[in-house]
Amino acid sequence: MEFFQVVTVAEARKILSNHWPRLKRKTVVCELTQALGRELVEDIVAQENVPGFTRSTVDGFAVRSGDTFGASEGAPALLRVIGEVPMGARAELALNPGEAAAVSTGGMLPQGADAVVMLEHTETLPGGWINVLKPVAPKENVMAEGEDVRKGRTVLKAGRRLRPQDLGVLAALGQREVKVWEPWRVGILATGNEIVPVDARPGPGQVRDINSYTLWGLIRSCGAEPKLYGIVPDDLACLREKLSEALEENQVVLLSGGSSVGTRDLTLDLLHHWAQDGVLFHGVSIRPGKPTLAAIVNDKIVFGLPGHPVSSMISFELFVGPLLKYGCYRDPEEEPAVEATLVRSLSSDAGREDYVRVRLERGEDGGLVAVPLPGKSGLISTMVQADGFIRIPLEKAGLEAGSRVKVKLFT
Amino acid sequence: MEFFQVVTVAEARKILSNHWPRLKRKTVVCELTQALGRELVEDIVAQENVPGFTRSTVDGFAVRSGDTFGASEGAPALLRVIGEVPMGARAELALNPGEAAAVSTGGMLPQGADAVVMLEHTETLPGGWINVLKPVAPKENVMAEGEDVRKGRTVLKAGRRLRPQDLGVLAALGQREVKVWEPWRVGILATGNEIVPVDARPGPGQVRDINSYTLWGLIRSCGAEPKLYGIVPDDLACLREKLSEALEENQVVLLSGGSSVGTRDLTLDLLHHWAQDGVLFHGVSIRPGKPTLAAIVNDKIVFGLPGHPVSSMISFELFVGPLLKYGCYRDPEEEPAVEATLVRSLSSDAGREDYVRVRLERGEDGGLVAVPLPGKSGLISTMVQADGFIRIPLEKAGLEAGSRVKVKLFT
Repeated sequence: MEFFQVVTVAEARKILSNHWPRLKRKTVVCELTQALGRELVEDIVAQENVPGFTRSTVDGFAVRSGDTFGASEGAPALLRVIGEVPMGARAELALNPGEAAAVSTGGMLPQGADAVVMLEHTETLPGGWINVLKPVAPKENVMAEGEDVRKGRTVLKAGRRLRPQDLGVLAALGQREVKVWEPWRVGILATGNEIVPVDARPGPGQVRDINSYTLWGLIRSCGAEPKLYGIVPDDLACLREKLSEALEENQVVLLSGGSSVGTRDLTLDLLHHWAQDGVLFHGVSIRPGKPTLAAIVNDKIVFGLPGHPVSSMISFELFVGPLLKYGCYRDPEEEPAVEATLVRSLSSDAGREDYVRVRLERGEDGGLVAVPLPGKSGLISTMVQADGFIRIPLEKAGLEAGSRVKVKLFT
Repeated sequence: MEFFQVVTVAEARKILSNHWPRLKRKTVVCELTQALGRELVEDIVAQENVPGFTRSTVDGFAVRSGDTFGASEGAPALLRVIGEVPMGARAELALNPGEAAAVSTGGMLPQGADAVVMLEHTETLPGGWINVLKPVAPKENVMAEGEDVRKGRTVLKAGRRLRPQDLGVLAALGQREVKVWEPWRVGILATGNEIVPVDARPGPGQVRDINSYTLWGLIRSCGAEPKLYGIVPDDLACLREKLSEALEENQVVLLSGGSSVGTRDLTLDLLHHWAQDGVLFHGVSIRPGKPTLAAIVNDKIVFGLPGHPVSSMISFELFVGPLLKYGCYRDPEEEPAVEATLVRSLSSDAGREDYVRVRLERGEDGGLVAVPLPGKSGLISTMVQADGFIRIPLEKAGLEAGSRVKVKLFT
């Protein structure tokens, strides 16, 4: 019988958010490309201006903008072309009034020039002259020195998870190496006397370990470093030994399964005696995923995840994944989702969040529809068929067929 | 001057989709965890039933459902408990009418039993008897043999990109290794006399190579294998040599930059003479990203991407990324996005798709708002500040302030 007090998703997340900053990681200096997806240890402050000189953003002619004022197709401004700016070198030319210099995109503006006329707005005349058919304002078609990044500015803040464009700006600043946090290490222990390894042939009453592999994939997809610790039988000494080993080498340990009464009781016994803050919570008001458990041991977090494969994944997505990926929980509104029309009504008990697997299809009118895939939470095949899931919040008693829903896609 | 005929995004994608299947890759057999994100070479057909036996999905008592019909709190069904099913072993017991056996979640159903009563719906009596307080239907709280995966069923189709749950079902089937396609190899060549490597100090008129690094990150985020080929100066022989080398080792080559007239002309000259199908297209009706080019050389695809960092990223996201990640282009409707309120009106020319960088913030009412970050497409810093982008479709002349927009987040 389940005697534990269930908490809401919000309560569980609040507890975990408070504990998360206690976890410790090492830092590492790595080559720029290897820093993708890693988090910065320190602020990055620009040591120089980018670009280091004023350059053209188009192909055309560098001019003194004043020379083009009032120019039109009917009354073009006539300018003398005194040369061409070489790419990748100083523009040695200097423009006097009435003069222009050919310049390519990215080329340096010559002295005296303050704007660039696009090639399309000029007419080349014989003898080194051009007609400018349209006026340019000062600084038009020009990127000024330091306009992209100004020296002294904080370009990226500590904690930032580096995206492709962040690598780009670091490259612009000449930062060939960068100091980042090591990825979170997450150990996975499968529990249960009925579980056998993937390469075993299950005997009567036995099933192969599914959750270690789905969890491995989920952890990896969050940019963290998973490690499999195999299967622990229902034995207190074994569990204690394996869990100690996993806690030694990781910041987070997932105890998968232990859905049977025996394993669950063992796990609870062990954690209640071991965890310095006791068990943080045991049981969350969600379906599936209710028997989720968390505890702090040696400033590390142990999650007890449900044994049913669907529950295990949903529980991970709700509680573990966001911390690994963002270090916090995001509002559902901020989670990218696909909008679709629900084809069937769904009911839910008030006071419980429901997560429903759905497949996306095209409806009769060609629009996207979400087809719920009900089914026992023990069926991994329903997750394989699903494209994502929808959430029925705590306060809702269900969702009507025909309503627009947000589907969070599996990655 | 730009003489090339621009194509629409849809036209460009259609041309590329036609050519994509020509690209060749090797296959590799890899360990299950290493197959995450890779694509299956062959269909996976189940060689056995999962589970291999009928099991309980709850903690409780295995019963003959008929024995519980009509049971209620007022008139419970009295059953004799003849034993307990051991986990991970055959249930040796056999139930006669009026008998029950204790069983944990995942345990095997004994012979004669066809359902399980949840522990919560029973009352334990002295002397090895229980009261059943609620009837169970046949098969209730039971997962039948083969209910998750039936032997002979195609579980995963060839071409499937393996997600965490797909690893799970493969594990359930005992598939320790799996045959997958090697990741796409994508070479990156930066061009332009003004570009210097990240570890160089730029001289007058020079800037460091930004795009190689943003493209590296984007390629990697698509699960493909990027390789940097450095910077090629504006010289036909050098360009031909480097491009040959990159084509030798990759299925896709990105020529970054060449935004200056000189480089662009060189690239076009080379590709027009070299590409067996000629240049597929040169110029797309988008902003930013217009000067995008594609060509087929030796059954491989060469993309010429714009030199401006913002244009380069947008062009990659529109044309290269989806092919690397999905092998096709998805409808914008199918792309996960965050919905927000646009804080400022945006205009766009009809007949052109616009991609506008935005930052997500909380508005006065607490809702998500999208703040456009206008700015030259040469400014990588605007991409660093942006959370994602919004699309103004071909047929729209703009978007009104206050309208709800879909923001595609950068990964």
